[in-house]
Amino acid sequence: MAKHFTSLAELPLPTVLSLLDRSQFFRSQPPAHLDQVLRHKVVANVFFEPSTRTRLSFEMAAKRLGGDVINFDLGNSSVKKGETLYDTLKTLESIGVDALVLRHSDDRVFETLAHLRVPMINAGAGKHEHPSQCLLDLLTLRQEFGSFEGRHILIIGDIRHSRVAGSMILMAPRLGMKITLAGPDDMMPVPLPAHCARAPLDEALPTVDAVMCLRNQFERHEGLALSPAEFHTQWGLTSARAARMQSGAILMHPAPINRGVEIADELVEHPASRIFKQMENGVYARMAILEWILKGEN
Amino acid sequence: MAKHFTSLAELPLPTVLSLLDRSQFFRSQPPAHLDQVLRHKVVANVFFEPSTRTRLSFEMAAKRLGGDVINFDLGNSSVKKGETLYDTLKTLESIGVDALVLRHSDDRVFETLAHLRVPMINAGAGKHEHPSQCLLDLLTLRQEFGSFEGRHILIIGDIRHSRVAGSMILMAPRLGMKITLAGPDDMMPVPLPAHCARAPLDEALPTVDAVMCLRNQFERHEGLALSPAEFHTQWGLTSARAARMQSGAILMHPAPINRGVEIADELVEHPASRIFKQMENGVYARMAILEWILKGEN
Amino acid sequence: MAKHFTSLAELPLPTVLSLLDRSQFFRSQPPAHLDQVLRHKVVANVFFEPSTRTRLSFEMAAKRLGGDVINFDLGNSSVKKGETLYDTLKTLESIGVDALVLRHSDDRVFETLAHLRVPMINAGAGKHEHPSQCLLDLLTLRQEFGSFEGRHILIIGDIRHSRVAGSMILMAPRLGMKITLAGPDDMMPVPLPAHCARAPLDEALPTVDAVMCLRNQFERHEGLALSPAEFHTQWGLTSARAARMQSGAILMHPAPINRGVEIADELVEHPASRIFKQMENGVYARMAILEWILKGEN
Repeated sequence: MAKHFTSLAELPLPTVLSLLDRSQFFRSQPPAHLDQVLRHKVVANVFFEPSTRTRLSFEMAAKRLGGDVINFDLGNSSVKKGETLYDTLKTLESIGVDALVLRHSDDRVFETLAHLRVPMINAGAGKHEHPSQCLLDLLTLRQEFGSFEGRHILIIGDIRHSRVAGSMILMAPRLGMKITLAGPDDMMPVPLPAHCARAPLDEALPTVDAVMCLRNQFERHEGLALSPAEFHTQWGLTSARAARMQSGAILMHPAPINRGVEIADELVEHPASRIFKQMENGVYARMAILEWILKGEN
Repeated sequence: MAKHFTSLAELPLPTVLSLLDRSQFFRSQPPAHLDQVLRHKVVANVFFEPSTRTRLSFEMAAKRLGGDVINFDLGNSSVKKGETLYDTLKTLESIGVDALVLRHSDDRVFETLAHLRVPMINAGAGKHEHPSQCLLDLLTLRQEFGSFEGRHILIIGDIRHSRVAGSMILMAPRLGMKITLAGPDDMMPVPLPAHCARAPLDEALPTVDAVMCLRNQFERHEGLALSPAEFHTQWGLTSARAARMQSGAILMHPAPINRGVEIADELVEHPASRIFKQMENGVYARMAILEWILKGEN
Repeated sequence: MAKHFTSLAELPLPTVLSLLDRSQFFRSQPPAHLDQVLRHKVVANVFFEPSTRTRLSFEMAAKRLGGDVINFDLGNSSVKKGETLYDTLKTLESIGVDALVLRHSDDRVFETLAHLRVPMINAGAGKHEHPSQCLLDLLTLRQEFGSFEGRHILIIGDIRHSRVAGSMILMAPRLGMKITLAGPDDMMPVPLPAHCARAPLDEALPTVDAVMCLRNQFERHEGLALSPAEFHTQWGLTSARAARMQSGAILMHPAPINRGVEIADELVEHPASRIFKQMENGVYARMAILEWILKGEN
């Protein structure tokens, strides 16, 4: 039975915390100290949906640990010849890839692939979880606040279609964090998870430790009631709204950012923003995931 | 005069056998023992036709031997600016690539390139030979049967358009193997090679040591007489047909597979199937080819 | 303040000469002597316009020096999701890339990116300069003539749209070289730089040390007065014209080549041609640039 990293919600909490510790350790090390960790290991990036950050972040993570990376190029592949997903990934297993990093639109993709022996990592599959993103979000929060217990996260925007929000909503109660959601009705999860409050944006803002914006996934859903400009006015993080956040609160976004929609242009590199630090942390979180998958328990 | 690997049929038999020995040796070694073989060597993958298995297999082979790989990305290249194939490949030679792994639709591509000094490997060029695939097929047969002499291979399906079949038909008599062909008239080679028999599929099945299915290359030829479903009924390997194979006989397919056309879905991972083992062997065969090309005679 | 390589014209002359020395040094070394220079460094190739030579040349340069390369694949990236160039490159900075090699159509791209901390290398940005190409051209000239002082370069063709010509025109007077331009009116720079003469092609040819052809960039400008065949007759380097070059004079072209347009087919590998040697030199020049950017002053 292969070890997979498909869901953070299903991992035991001590494992999650140990992945965070390991991420932080990797952050503290100079590159020359780490280049033997994944020596002779080959990781395949297999992305059936576009990505910059996640794909490159896994590639960098593998290389920083001395591993090698094969990028499966969908456009030039046998998928064009009608090959099934299972056969494509079984091929990668057969040629000796040590782990698959997989992004796919299908919610049930890992069930389809249950017979594979190669370890798989969920790099954004379906619309429920994005566990490596959640790990880096947790790492960013812990760096800021030292611990999770009692912290309050406000998630704004397109929560219904966001696997980033989905993962955080699943993890927060396990870590003692409180979640409040804000956004238009057609972007709220149905049903609202029992442990999540919903609140008017301007009321919630001054009460939270972290504001998590989400990308409006224009390419995933048609017919939203609000135009980008209307969304910004009603639900976007504007400078006026950011000024109402409490001292020490931070601002997060998984990126890519629609500047001027979810968040005002001038807030992207605001002192309270951790957006690019999240990306830095993403590499360390993925180093921890790769090590955990490829080298046994820590 | 550069050393090329363009045709298995033109290689002396002892060289072919030594490549098989070397492939088997690589199969037996842990990765850490092999990472100096191609150290400081850079191999370029240059694929003008889609491929998953062959391209990734060469990439994995080079990396497992400690070499480096440059993937020439056709879509983003100067070929778009009208550069000739010769100039593109002469460029790769000039920047110091140590070997070119080339897939191209033109049967005469290596003649066009005869002035290049960089060693070239045929990764499926034209429609006559696919020598690295043939090497892995031979490796799979030898692992199964210990030797080739007297073994009987049944090749089914689109033999006329298959460079995989073409290579095996050229090599079989040199190794003392008997070839029988089965398939519809418009998929038979013209003329039928003298050393190949043609037989009704159900008559031939119980008499052979290996059944080699081929991919129906729907993208290469229009106007076939048979629909995929008709092909399956008349010429596909069904479970009923597989049950008539003799004990110890194996089932091969170069992939990508059209499940339910050339072969029934449930046979792909049947105990007699060597399909994914063929893919594993492909990496070892290509390691042997790269070593032979880049390091002199073994 | 990050160190960038955006313009050769703005670099102090001793730095340019030291880059040439270093390029020549790298040319003299076996691969095994160089693989620690960029150890643990990761370079990202970020090409928003097609390229073969330049991208592969930087990739080879980084790998020969023991560095690692990430190829940013535009077609499969978040640029499709509407991400700004700044955010895309800030992402690469955040994930820890040590240098960006950037090709982009915008003349002002580096101004847009002035806040980034990651070192950037101009691999052909805008239409003014192509400094790594110029460095390899200078290296080729110095190998041939030992020094620059008093040498005379004839540049033919589409000078107005060529960043290759632009860079050479900027550098030549600093090195004591004389420049003559030849070509149709609509391909001449406006205004003609004060230090450049313009002369009839057949008059200039016997007087120069090097003839630099340029690629006709058919994809960049519509409505040229001359057809390719007319261009060849009037401004192309034909065998008859090449025969009038003085003994010891060399022939250069940045490639990709339109054979039979800028230059006759049979001249591409003529004894006076340095076209493929230019490509060889490109790798050494880019090794020098990467080392300079990533390892401090030489």
